[in-house]
Amino acid sequence: MTAARGSGTEEMLARAAWSRLVEPGDAVAGALVHALGARESLDWIRWAATSGRAESAVQTLVAREDEALAPLRRRLGAALARWEPRLAALEPAQEIEHVHRLGGRFLHPGAPGWPTGLDDLGAAAPLGLWQRGRPELDRLLTRSVALVGARASTAYGDRVAVDLADGLAGSGVCVVSGGAYGIDAAAHRGALAGGGATVALLAGGVDRAYPAGNAPLLERVLEQGGSVLSEVPPGGVPSRSRFLMRNRLIAAVSRATVVVEAAWRSGALSTAHHAAALLRPLGAVPGPVTSVASAGCHRLLREGAAICVTDAAEVLELAGPLGTAPEERHEQARPHDGLDWVADRVLDALSLRSAADVDTLARRAGLSPGDVRGALGTLELARLAELRATGWRRTRAVT
Amino acid sequence: MTAARGSGTEEMLARAAWSRLVEPGDAVAGALVHALGARESLDWIRWAATSGRAESAVQTLVAREDEALAPLRRRLGAALARWEPRLAALEPAQEIEHVHRLGGRFLHPGAPGWPTGLDDLGAAAPLGLWQRGRPELDRLLTRSVALVGARASTAYGDRVAVDLADGLAGSGVCVVSGGAYGIDAAAHRGALAGGGATVALLAGGVDRAYPAGNAPLLERVLEQGGSVLSEVPPGGVPSRSRFLMRNRLIAAVSRATVVVEAAWRSGALSTAHHAAALLRPLGAVPGPVTSVASAGCHRLLREGAAICVTDAAEVLELAGPLGTAPEERHEQARPHDGLDWVADRVLDALSLRSAADVDTLARRAGLSPGDVRGALGTLELARLAELRATGWRRTRAVT
Repeated sequence: MTAARGSGTEEMLARAAWSRLVEPGDAVAGALVHALGARESLDWIRWAATSGRAESAVQTLVAREDEALAPLRRRLGAALARWEPRLAALEPAQEIEHVHRLGGRFLHPGAPGWPTGLDDLGAAAPLGLWQRGRPELDRLLTRSVALVGARASTAYGDRVAVDLADGLAGSGVCVVSGGAYGIDAAAHRGALAGGGATVALLAGGVDRAYPAGNAPLLERVLEQGGSVLSEVPPGGVPSRSRFLMRNRLIAAVSRATVVVEAAWRSGALSTAHHAAALLRPLGAVPGPVTSVASAGCHRLLREGAAICVTDAAEVLELAGPLGTAPEERHEQARPHDGLDWVADRVLDALSLRSAADVDTLARRAGLSPGDVRGALGTLELARLAELRATGWRRTRAVT
Repeated sequence: MTAARGSGTEEMLARAAWSRLVEPGDAVAGALVHALGARESLDWIRWAATSGRAESAVQTLVAREDEALAPLRRRLGAALARWEPRLAALEPAQEIEHVHRLGGRFLHPGAPGWPTGLDDLGAAAPLGLWQRGRPELDRLLTRSVALVGARASTAYGDRVAVDLADGLAGSGVCVVSGGAYGIDAAAHRGALAGGGATVALLAGGVDRAYPAGNAPLLERVLEQGGSVLSEVPPGGVPSRSRFLMRNRLIAAVSRATVVVEAAWRSGALSTAHHAAALLRPLGAVPGPVTSVASAGCHRLLREGAAICVTDAAEVLELAGPLGTAPEERHEQARPHDGLDWVADRVLDALSLRSAADVDTLARRAGLSPGDVRGALGTLELARLAELRATGWRRTRAVT
């Protein structure tokens, strides 16, 4: 694929060009492309830039497209000025070719594999997505949970992230994260350990592992049927603003987002807020209050922004229909379960060491002798009480 | 005080007798005493019991008191039968005398020192309260927070309980707990360390420390201006049902309740549910999800029953008007705070090592050269960027 061969391909090439032209989350670009289409809007920019009469180009365009672009009138001039410096260096066909050689592709809205969750971002949706990995990306993301958190994670956070991701992968859920050190890496590792496909959404190009130390991990992600994604074209350098904008994509492609560990101010919280803004379920894993690495999670819980999740079953429940409800847990039966309050109180009044008669038990328990006799029958059947020569005794300790 | 000397004293003696007669939380007793007064209802029981005609006694009473007691008609007969076994052994004056010798007293509703919060329990309110410690109990409890939790606490839970109680005591808040091992003991110890008065609400009599190992701790509670309380008369043995009923009192006397550490099934959760039922603020301290000792806290958070609290300031905020709002915390300023998004992006595009001209920066940042120049001015003023012979450079690392 080296040149436009029909309108579908032309549109894709134009979107790939757009993805180089603008920084992530450029809402003016999103609205313009939405109104005119990628190719026509790109042609218009080229014309406006080369004509040297941006102001009149904007006026002409807005006059023609009236309703769709009127709200952008004031912002289009400034947008043109910031897009122009990159206009000369657009080579979308080569960039797509480059990603093809890496086993990847450029996805755009409506094309097969495009994660439909991204459309919920509206004008802030990416203009396209660079992907390495298997083609059926959207199917993979149908059952997906983002596990995000601090780069400066603790051993506790890493362990929890690995456990959650392992459990989710075991339930057929795709774990999405950002490919960074710390919680991100632990999440990807756990998903791989659980035999799952996992998706890494990078802030830089998909052809460069960032951080470099995670290159082998990202290779394993690809080998095991997962994907590496970015809205920034190949060669793109990750920057702080790109990290922040990338976070909206993690939230948007996932059915639910869980923050495993995050400091009071942490990029992971931006992902959380994007998830909340998209009305996606948001979970937070608690940790020791003595750990600053959990302060951001506790903040989310405290503000009521996130649900408390402590294991993979609870994450599945959070994510809703994609999972199965967690089984009833921790409900270890105790000997006195199911006793009515009268029997319960008689059990309290019984001693393990010394036997007592019914009247003594009635006084101890604050019950009538008749009630005590009835309850003793129940307790005897349950093997909690026994009648000895000297009276009634408890048969075993009850906590 | 050895005999009735007027109706106030008679009522008090009758209530003390009632507190021996019934088990904690006996709602039939509560309703009867509420309708007839403690002395008259006690007289009626004596008459009904000695006449041997309980059924007709109930009918006569209900006919007379119609509205107030009609709902109890079916339950009064059974209640009489369970109260009767203890009727012979009532010695309220001696018991009050006994507690006097221990520097204590018997409190009843409306009397000075009676914790008014208990009245919110309605018919389940205690008929009276046995107290050791300084008289002005109600004033002490005006600013109070219950810290409760597992007996089988961890070192983490103990540490958090001590820290919270210490901080609350330092803010003049009375810490209420149950005098048990584990979190309870840590809460009392922390309050003492913080120089505060603390209240221990026991499931057994105030004259017997339970557990015995906490006797020195309860002595220190009394020495430091706190109180030891129970609705069970002196000599009363703690039992499981008494522990559970005692929990409603901890919740009712406190302005807010915080669960520090609790297993999935834990008595501390019963205190929590009482607090919630009383519409008292309820907090839970998170902990490691790998710790079963925090599972109950996480359960409360997950169910939305409790607010996440991580330090004394947040507990004060939870408890509302009794405290002051916590100061803004964790908000360590960063160099890029307050920059607009354009300056922020130019900062991203600047390098620490190699200088770049405005056009290069515009391409890198996806901005117009004009915007870049404007932003460089801002960044230079903020000492984040500097102009060298070769172009613009960042002055220091930004995270």
